[in-house]
Amino acid sequence: MSNYLITGTSRGLGLCLVKELLKRPATSVGLILATTRSDPTPALQKIIDESSGRVINVIVNPADIESVKAASLAVEKHLNGAGLDVLVNNVGVLPISNGIKNMDNLAEAFNVNVMSVQNMTTVFLPLLEKGKLKKVANISTTVSSFAYQDIFGRVPAPAYKVTKAALNMLTLQWGLEYRDKGFTIFGVSPGWLKTDLGGEGANLEPEQGAEATMKVIDTAGEEEVGKLLNIHLPGFGEGHGDHYQGGAVPW
Amino acid sequence: MSNYLITGTSRGLGLCLVKELLKRPATSVGLILATTRSDPTPALQKIIDESSGRVINVIVNPADIESVKAASLAVEKHLNGAGLDVLVNNVGVLPISNGIKNMDNLAEAFNVNVMSVQNMTTVFLPLLEKGKLKKVANISTTVSSFAYQDIFGRVPAPAYKVTKAALNMLTLQWGLEYRDKGFTIFGVSPGWLKTDLGGEGANLEPEQGAEATMKVIDTAGEEEVGKLLNIHLPGFGEGHGDHYQGGAVPW
Repeated sequence: MSNYLITGTSRGLGLCLVKELLKRPATSVGLILATTRSDPTPALQKIIDESSGRVINVIVNPADIESVKAASLAVEKHLNGAGLDVLVNNVGVLPISNGIKNMDNLAEAFNVNVMSVQNMTTVFLPLLEKGKLKKVANISTTVSSFAYQDIFGRVPAPAYKVTKAALNMLTLQWGLEYRDKGFTIFGVSPGWLKTDLGGEGANLEPEQGAEATMKVIDTAGEEEVGKLLNIHLPGFGEGHGDHYQGGAVPW
Repeated sequence: MSNYLITGTSRGLGLCLVKELLKRPATSVGLILATTRSDPTPALQKIIDESSGRVINVIVNPADIESVKAASLAVEKHLNGAGLDVLVNNVGVLPISNGIKNMDNLAEAFNVNVMSVQNMTTVFLPLLEKGKLKKVANISTTVSSFAYQDIFGRVPAPAYKVTKAALNMLTLQWGLEYRDKGFTIFGVSPGWLKTDLGGEGANLEPEQGAEATMKVIDTAGEEEVGKLLNIHLPGFGEGHGDHYQGGAVPW
């Protein structure tokens, strides 16, 4: 039985990851700690109410280290002596800029997309060390791949690309340093999803992305440490390079 | 005749880039605007005093957008109607961390290594548009290459790697967007230099790095847009993968 913590579960991918885990038997998935910055959205509250106590809301601002420290104490109590097995750093923002000279959201994007991951991973490390799986999955994106800028170069979200590239390097550094300590720390690109973040033009339902993302998290092992892993849904990414082929995304 | 602006010229590579440019005749290199955060160091002051008015100190904190705006007004006066031809975003920090969980310098490193470049490039854009060369060189490092982490993975400077990877993506986004407007925006890895930043164990004198870096800046053209370019000093990087082979650093 494994305990999971997922950040950013008010809506979108985070919410669907909670739903995806709830499909599994309680013998496989124990507690699902679902973080939000403020009170749960109605969608999350409904899931919590129907979860027989398996989903627990934790209010935290992952970009604020003091808030994260307070949240870790609350989580420790909920775990009641058990460890945390999987941390999914999902919270993120995708700010749009009309021209890179007008990008006025870079510092804030860095705070949410990168500092949050550093804060959460650092502060929850002792609980992860007590866990059996010792997995940390950082949600990133193929849009942050240097190799794919011939495709994504004109996506008007430079702050997203810059901060997710930074996140990818952060993931790689954590992955390499903690590999020998039994940790599996890696990135996942969940696909382009029809969420508030991805927009209506996206090519996957959030539930599809969540299911595919959980498969990646389930199977990631030592070979995957530090990498940005793609979902495996061949055929669904057509028109966008059909990039859902699984495996590691080229840097 | 081209006018240059170089940030971070108090010491190290920035100071040597000023010296390197001063070797050239005034018919080739016009004004050299050398920025510092506070009063010039004795080393820079000596160069200014002996430069016959070619080197002009500009005090600016590149991480502070208001300071950059004030500096651009001062530079505009110095240029007296002429454009700025080359901007070298050199200012940077390399903070060390004893273990990534103890990294407490990431936000500050992002501010200096990434926000500075965004601020300087944005605010100086109108003066660069008036220039003939329209070149922006962002000083980065092979240490931030994802592909080289088998070599550099254990360098205990995660904040440096994360923020320089972010800088590389920022450079690529600027490069792609401004290529069609006649700009050449690219990154340069100046080599591992015996400076305060690089330490005594480095394998190149700062003057060697500055000379090699200026050669890269001189020759960079449309083909080099967005790339992280290596210096060409084969044989000098031995024991560190001998990476001074010129060309683009793999991402």
